[in-house]
Amino acid sequence: MKVFVFDWTAYGESIDKFRVNGKIPRLVRENFESEVAINTYKNHIKAWVELEKQGFDGVAINEHHGTPFGLGNSPNLMAAALSQLTEKLKILVYANLLPIHEPLRLAEELAMLDCMTNGRLIAGVARGAPREYNIFNVPMSESRGRFNEAFDVMHGAWTEDRFSFDGEFYKYRDVSIWPRPVQQPHPPIWVPLTGSKETIEWAAAHDATITPGVFAGPMREDTIRYFAECQEKHGRKVQSDKICIMVDCYVADSKQQAVDEYGEYLMYLFNTLLGYDQVWQDEVNKKGYYSSTAFEHLREGTKGTLAEDGTVFNEWTMDTVRAAAEHMPMGTADQVVERIIAECDDAGANNVLLVCNRGHMPHEMYLNQIRRIGKEVLPKLQAHHVTFVPHAEQRLAAE
Amino acid sequence: MKVFVFDWTAYGESIDKFRVNGKIPRLVRENFESEVAINTYKNHIKAWVELEKQGFDGVAINEHHGTPFGLGNSPNLMAAALSQLTEKLKILVYANLLPIHEPLRLAEELAMLDCMTNGRLIAGVARGAPREYNIFNVPMSESRGRFNEAFDVMHGAWTEDRFSFDGEFYKYRDVSIWPRPVQQPHPPIWVPLTGSKETIEWAAAHDATITPGVFAGPMREDTIRYFAECQEKHGRKVQSDKICIMVDCYVADSKQQAVDEYGEYLMYLFNTLLGYDQVWQDEVNKKGYYSSTAFEHLREGTKGTLAEDGTVFNEWTMDTVRAAAEHMPMGTADQVVERIIAECDDAGANNVLLVCNRGHMPHEMYLNQIRRIGKEVLPKLQAHHVTFVPHAEQRLAAE
Repeated sequence: MKVFVFDWTAYGESIDKFRVNGKIPRLVRENFESEVAINTYKNHIKAWVELEKQGFDGVAINEHHGTPFGLGNSPNLMAAALSQLTEKLKILVYANLLPIHEPLRLAEELAMLDCMTNGRLIAGVARGAPREYNIFNVPMSESRGRFNEAFDVMHGAWTEDRFSFDGEFYKYRDVSIWPRPVQQPHPPIWVPLTGSKETIEWAAAHDATITPGVFAGPMREDTIRYFAECQEKHGRKVQSDKICIMVDCYVADSKQQAVDEYGEYLMYLFNTLLGYDQVWQDEVNKKGYYSSTAFEHLREGTKGTLAEDGTVFNEWTMDTVRAAAEHMPMGTADQVVERIIAECDDAGANNVLLVCNRGHMPHEMYLNQIRRIGKEVLPKLQAHHVTFVPHAEQRLAAE
Repeated sequence: MKVFVFDWTAYGESIDKFRVNGKIPRLVRENFESEVAINTYKNHIKAWVELEKQGFDGVAINEHHGTPFGLGNSPNLMAAALSQLTEKLKILVYANLLPIHEPLRLAEELAMLDCMTNGRLIAGVARGAPREYNIFNVPMSESRGRFNEAFDVMHGAWTEDRFSFDGEFYKYRDVSIWPRPVQQPHPPIWVPLTGSKETIEWAAAHDATITPGVFAGPMREDTIRYFAECQEKHGRKVQSDKICIMVDCYVADSKQQAVDEYGEYLMYLFNTLLGYDQVWQDEVNKKGYYSSTAFEHLREGTKGTLAEDGTVFNEWTMDTVRAAAEHMPMGTADQVVERIIAECDDAGANNVLLVCNRGHMPHEMYLNQIRRIGKEVLPKLQAHHVTFVPHAEQRLAAE
């Protein structure tokens, strides 16, 4: 398998100290400690350099706005910073949020990054979190249309000699970008599938690498099944090399120790970061972020989005962590390897994104995890090859 | 004086081989050699690291699109790449082209860069070359309005706790960016003044550091005079610390040797790069890039813009180079020092941007210039202090 570390690059100190009557207010200038932000970028970039030393296949970073959850307002800037410090590590920007980008500029940036990394860029694309549409004042109801057009603009700019486009949202005439991408015809496209049926159809049509669902379970299974169905319409069979899942993991000398050490940061993730300045589901629905058929591919009773998943937005305690850890790759290296391989086998994924740094975990603790995972877990994962996609095959067998 | 090197980061090989009947056609995919672009970024970034070693105060990079003239589609990505390789060097992005940016995203990027550089960012702003409006399909007639609004958006996003804006081109509601700039209230603002009166007025109103005109002469003098007049209206006197000029220079053992070695690259600049895919002046005028009063501050007969300057767009030969070298800082270190100091004294500029790498100059030749300038020229420039702005003082004296 190919093994990446996914790093949200959360603001490096807890913001719990800013709570007023238990609630986190909007963070403003007086809450901003520049030293913390300076060190957050510096330390995370150093950790990614360590990933290359340890032999990981890549690092994944992503785009978020106006939140301590992740300082990647422009993950492309972080990719650029890393480009000169590494030589082999793939850099997966997972993802640039197409509907809130100017797509021609994004095409240029990704072409530049492909040059600056010598062809190591993987271009993830996504629609983004609804609250970010509010920030950029882009109507949620235009999200799907903008996503589709923005990708077509990027693709055209990358691959056509003289590119013109006449869309509803974007128009260009006779453009030839320079420089162009190193990878031909363009960097690989990856897309997370966390909700809508339409994105699954898009991913299949574009033969993208997918991340089906955030967690194991019915939603992931139904996503893979529907993706397989769509791929078939394009005359393709789902390949494990084009499926990637994400798992939280933590290596310690025992599961108990993993819970004790990592618990604080998981609780901070769920109780503080994820809910920060959140846009709630009824607003998202009202504003037309999802189409009326967005969840048709899911079995009855399955929730399609993160935001509707009660487990995510309930208050976590150490008991929640302990219960979750029973099903998570947290514990000894052997427990972690076994659990990750089981989840990859089940998803038919030959790529995995490990998350081993939540919240404001100290730099040394993060580096230590990278080194332990690198030595004790990584070789076994890289030696394992997933070639079979059970939920796709079951679907075919059932026909 | 503070001494920067301005580096356009031109595509690293001559494109003259693509001429058809003497003319350079639009460059397309088959013209693109990825190895050249990969090395262009890598080598220029290495050269900037050398600038820090040699004790230069900063590097300046800029934004251009769809041209081998400069590969800085996003100079911010190049600044990010450099951020982790240097510790003291100021990074002047000169400039982000405000009217073709999404300004909130740009504010975020510059805040990130200020964190990634630990407060070493200087934020240059400009309107950009007219041809780039065609690429991004932004009407030239909206250039001024977009420039003004875009800066106000950036300024508001940087300095206000919860920022809202209701402009003609941009609208936002209740935005709090995170992270925020390290430098308070925001990174220093620099602006080149190559034409319009309105930009001079804007620069004075915002107390920006200016670069008055590309060349010495009446246009620079009139620009400084009018800038001084505008500053006075805001109750300020022009300071040399806030004037910066740009000069081409080349150090050799004699002027003849400088001409012989640098001539090829100056000719390539004028005969190949500057005219590439150019939008000519009549189109620019017709499309309303300049207001009807844009050149009112200039004396009769003075040309306000680069594009109208015949010397720039005429065919250069070695004779042109030889003639130009008589008035340029090209030659022995002493000749170079003397000429640069004379020009800075005349402009009243305590900041200078040296251009010592035009076109496809080989990497070793560029490094060699950086080292020679660093050893033989830089200490004398840094020891010189300009505190008097003659063209401003003459104006005051004449009143």
